[in-house]
Amino acid sequence: MESLTDRIRRGDVLAAACPSRAILRHMTSQWGVLVLLVLRERTHRFSALRRRIDGVSERMLAQTLKLLEGDALVRRVAHATVPPHVDYSLTPLGEEAAAHVAQLTDWLEVNVSRIIGSDAAIDA
Amino acid sequence: MESLTDRIRRGDVLAAACPSRAILRHMTSQWGVLVLLVLRERTHRFSALRRRIDGVSERMLAQTLKLLEGDALVRRVAHATVPPHVDYSLTPLGEEAAAHVAQLTDWLEVNVSRIIGSDAAIDA
Repeated sequence: MESLTDRIRRGDVLAAACPSRAILRHMTSQWGVLVLLVLRERTHRFSALRRRIDGVSERMLAQTLKLLEGDALVRRVAHATVPPHVDYSLTPLGEEAAAHVAQLTDWLEVNVSRIIGSDAAIDA
Repeated sequence: MESLTDRIRRGDVLAAACPSRAILRHMTSQWGVLVLLVLRERTHRFSALRRRIDGVSERMLAQTLKLLEGDALVRRVAHATVPPHVDYSLTPLGEEAAAHVAQLTDWLEVNVSRIIGSDAAIDA
């Protein structure tokens, strides 16, 4: 029998029922984008991630990490140390995803003055 | 006096107060991503956009277009025809933004089977 993986040869984010649509929402969620960016720098503990991402709540960060872990983009490793600590890092798939997210945010950071200086942005 | 545009030489999406953070949210919102993708194909009327983006409501599409127009990424042109119609297209800035969004969604569409076939995704 053909597996689900075989049947989905290429996703289509424009189709509401395509699994890629849900993964896109996780990757491009308000905090998902920033988590991928920060984990691209290096592995982080939860508390360090939270300090690095200005404005995120503990609850939203935990929820975002759980969704990205479910999509196999983020890996969670709990260390049995005293005191215990948990590390978050990107999986190889997560590295690929984060590289694309970083290209988008790099463009935005470089061009933000063009955007807010444009007539349309001033009129709005 | 130094203008706002001069002061913001490069944005920082990790800083909650940076204007790039709000623009990022519009570009990567659930419907913002899909609007940018579809307008990349060509200019669309509102009704055609809505048909193309499976699942979007009239209200959410109008709100998304308004935000992207405010960021100077989308251009709205109302034609004084009978019956009147409104066209939406990308601005040159919007073309650049949409190209980055498309690289991300292309990657996702090609890799969705790797993501949903991975152990982490199966466990979740």
